[in-house]
Amino acid sequence: MSVWIQRRADAEVAAQTATSQGPLAGLRLAVKDNVDVAGVPTTAGCPEFAYDPAQDAAAVAALKAAGAVVVGKTNLDQFATGLVGTRTPYGAVSNALRPEFISGGSSSGSAVAVATDEVDIAIGTDTAGSGRIPAAFNGIVGIKPTVGVVSTAGVVPACRSYDCVTIFARDLAVADRAMGVMAADAPARSWPADIRLAAPPQPVVAVFTELPELDAVWRGAFERTVAALKERGATIVAIDPTPFLAAARLLYNGALVAERYEAVGGFVDAHPESTDPTVASIIRAARDLPAHQLVADLAELERLRVLAMAGMADADVLLVPTAPFHPTIAEVAADPIGVNSRLGTYTNFCNLFDLCAVAVPAGTAGDAQFGVTVIGRTFEDAVAMDVAALVMDGEPPESAWPLSVAPVHDLVVFGAHLRGQPLEYQLIELGARWAGSVRTAPRYRLAVLDTIPPKPGVTRQPEGEPGVSVRGERWLLSPAALGRFLSALPAPMQLGSVELDNGSRATAFGCDAGAAASGKDISEYGDWRAALRAGAI
Amino acid sequence: MSVWIQRRADAEVAAQTATSQGPLAGLRLAVKDNVDVAGVPTTAGCPEFAYDPAQDAAAVAALKAAGAVVVGKTNLDQFATGLVGTRTPYGAVSNALRPEFISGGSSSGSAVAVATDEVDIAIGTDTAGSGRIPAAFNGIVGIKPTVGVVSTAGVVPACRSYDCVTIFARDLAVADRAMGVMAADAPARSWPADIRLAAPPQPVVAVFTELPELDAVWRGAFERTVAALKERGATIVAIDPTPFLAAARLLYNGALVAERYEAVGGFVDAHPESTDPTVASIIRAARDLPAHQLVADLAELERLRVLAMAGMADADVLLVPTAPFHPTIAEVAADPIGVNSRLGTYTNFCNLFDLCAVAVPAGTAGDAQFGVTVIGRTFEDAVAMDVAALVMDGEPPESAWPLSVAPVHDLVVFGAHLRGQPLEYQLIELGARWAGSVRTAPRYRLAVLDTIPPKPGVTRQPEGEPGVSVRGERWLLSPAALGRFLSALPAPMQLGSVELDNGSRATAFGCDAGAAASGKDISEYGDWRAALRAGAI
Repeated sequence: MSVWIQRRADAEVAAQTATSQGPLAGLRLAVKDNVDVAGVPTTAGCPEFAYDPAQDAAAVAALKAAGAVVVGKTNLDQFATGLVGTRTPYGAVSNALRPEFISGGSSSGSAVAVATDEVDIAIGTDTAGSGRIPAAFNGIVGIKPTVGVVSTAGVVPACRSYDCVTIFARDLAVADRAMGVMAADAPARSWPADIRLAAPPQPVVAVFTELPELDAVWRGAFERTVAALKERGATIVAIDPTPFLAAARLLYNGALVAERYEAVGGFVDAHPESTDPTVASIIRAARDLPAHQLVADLAELERLRVLAMAGMADADVLLVPTAPFHPTIAEVAADPIGVNSRLGTYTNFCNLFDLCAVAVPAGTAGDAQFGVTVIGRTFEDAVAMDVAALVMDGEPPESAWPLSVAPVHDLVVFGAHLRGQPLEYQLIELGARWAGSVRTAPRYRLAVLDTIPPKPGVTRQPEGEPGVSVRGERWLLSPAALGRFLSALPAPMQLGSVELDNGSRATAFGCDAGAAASGKDISEYGDWRAALRAGAI
Repeated sequence: MSVWIQRRADAEVAAQTATSQGPLAGLRLAVKDNVDVAGVPTTAGCPEFAYDPAQDAAAVAALKAAGAVVVGKTNLDQFATGLVGTRTPYGAVSNALRPEFISGGSSSGSAVAVATDEVDIAIGTDTAGSGRIPAAFNGIVGIKPTVGVVSTAGVVPACRSYDCVTIFARDLAVADRAMGVMAADAPARSWPADIRLAAPPQPVVAVFTELPELDAVWRGAFERTVAALKERGATIVAIDPTPFLAAARLLYNGALVAERYEAVGGFVDAHPESTDPTVASIIRAARDLPAHQLVADLAELERLRVLAMAGMADADVLLVPTAPFHPTIAEVAADPIGVNSRLGTYTNFCNLFDLCAVAVPAGTAGDAQFGVTVIGRTFEDAVAMDVAALVMDGEPPESAWPLSVAPVHDLVVFGAHLRGQPLEYQLIELGARWAGSVRTAPRYRLAVLDTIPPKPGVTRQPEGEPGVSVRGERWLLSPAALGRFLSALPAPMQLGSVELDNGSRATAFGCDAGAAASGKDISEYGDWRAALRAGAI
């Protein structure tokens, strides 16, 4: 029972999943019990706190509308305050694989329900690591997006400024699909027009020069993960962890914890007998912190953030062990605050620095699941997803959920900017994402222009004159990246709208009429690479 | 003496201005005495607080490097806490025009030094209106940029999160030039790639449905300003002031004032005899505010900000009276906190909502100077500058300082996107700024394409073949706006690099080769408008 606070009957769920429709049709969904599901009390892990929500939380509504079927509400560290899964009157949540060990928290029940295949996806929340630590301990995937890109409407706040709704799933593709659905629903924060939409194929991955608190056996597992990434083409750079770890300490040792008092302190004060003693002690201690200390801590946090981002400046992402060690339930009971605090070493700084993260399994170490987290910059969720896929599967995924919600333009290229061709790097540097092959409508002519390197001159044939379908490749770019690309484009190349063979239109390479006229016609190949192979270029 | 805390000898200043070089050569500069000038003690309006700065504040260094000559350090409300100019041991600063009235503050001396022509420009600071209120009372211009775009390095903090360095000048063009110089120096916050770079020629200006606290005579002056703007083409929309005024009250009645305690509270506590009693009472009262109240107030502020921005959604800027009334020094002495608080009615919310503002004179009302403030969204400083110029001079300026510091691309247009032509609106909607006429190198051909509306086909002539110089107009756009424009561009138009008659290159309109070939040649005109006038289009 400890995984679930409320659960629907299997038959009911089975009937509904069999007929559900939409992009998430048939997926069973667990919802952490600090997130509203209409008709079911929200307890936040505290029976006396429970209220009956009139409507679904925005994230729940979005997933349901896409076909996911709610199975029930899951157990959690009370008020989402904890990384352990034991701070709950509904019973400590055991690890999915090793019952005497902790599940991790605060999204404990959600992670275990996914790990044990009771559901396919689960909603968690994450302020200091609650969407990542339980993913690591139970061998599943947890996506913690950039703060604000998923609505927190209908979520009991833990720390209003830093709370995120997260997704757990057993594989990255399913988690990605669910995130895309949740993020499509009225975010509090709109996506900027200049984000990177992909990691470079050979990303630069930062790792800390030191890994404090890390279990000795896990140290080896982390090194193996790093070595595998290197084999897959990543460049590894070592950076100073000092500002990251200092921020992690600020979260609980400074005045930031006043956020938790603001969220539920009134209830905790009024119901001393109803709250978990550890949770209550943390929240009550925040009552008398002075506001000027919070101001000072926020200024210090900003100073640390600037230092940390400078450290990451040459890297695409940061890779950390998700958790430093895996304690037993008994070990947590013996030192509930100390163990919890050390568990957050590699997660606490993330939301404070406005970073996004993807926690993925990375094999086992001894008897334990081992997991790592790929941490990306603000709004670089797609970059983090790509590197997470490189960790898990050895190759980047075809898409990543931010592509479906951020402003994106396409650009079809025909020659020197094709994959593997000499100018591809310009698009990679702009954070463009390769999105497959396309063909133009059969109304174009392809020439090779007299440029260095040789470039393609694609021009539309006048009405009635025969043309060919030219093979191209589609890249996706942010609006600002497209503007920058155009602004740096040398003559005689031009960009404009081209007709594709499916009748749609896309922005694509063209060129100046004079250059096209003097180019060498290679239309017969209809394909730059074929012309290259034939020696026509 | 009350204007200056320290002032150099006239002869010394004269000698230096005569030989200074750079974009601000010959401009005399006053510096508010909470901003460091190397070699001169910084008092922040409190002699016992004074320290000897080793180097110039970033803003001072930038202005000096551009040729401005420091005349001295100016009086201020102590620790920049006040809007009145009387909270100082160096003597209340009298209004430049009516000595029994207040100068406004906290940048009192800086504003009066500009108004009395002792200097040409002056540095102020602004947290709650200190860079605007004194501009209004003394009949000059005050620019308060978006928070963070001018470095506050070397400035004594008042409220770290909201402090801005500002500029005073007698006219907008000089203030604009100085802002461009200050903003070029390492901002704390980088300009995003998708800002608007101009107000529409006929801007939509929001005004409040109600104007509480506003002096009866000034009400008429404000109405005249609004009527003049309307005559100059602006559309006026009335919006609800409730969220704006509620935020203004939060600044001093809530826990946000803890920012002031964090900044100088330690000094004030340790030196009870050295501080202005009103300032000390405000700062000391902030000592015991709880952090959880600050968290709650910040959440409330964000809620109000969302409401306020929704109210402004259809407007380009908000226009307010800068101050609601002009008290005498005696009136302030009789009620130092109450009068000050009411003075901030139209300024306090601005930095809290992350808005930018330009305060400009707007005639007189009775014996008093009257001033209004144009308030723009975050990073829309250029939009606010344009509307401010419309208020003052009846027409927008040629440039605005953000153009020299934000990422900007150019786009040269030849036909339907020329000023006054049918598609100009597309560029205006993207926040593009018109930047004058240009001509291509004499190597192009101009055709009119068979499109609706007719569009120009500009193509480069092959080497050796005769071409013409085509007249075009240059627009400036953010990278994201250029990307969006390209992405929406219909065939057969294309964009690419064109050679101008000065040998430089710019992104410009081209077109597909086939369309160019079938277009009607109008190269003989070299100018779309000339061809239109001749009936060739």
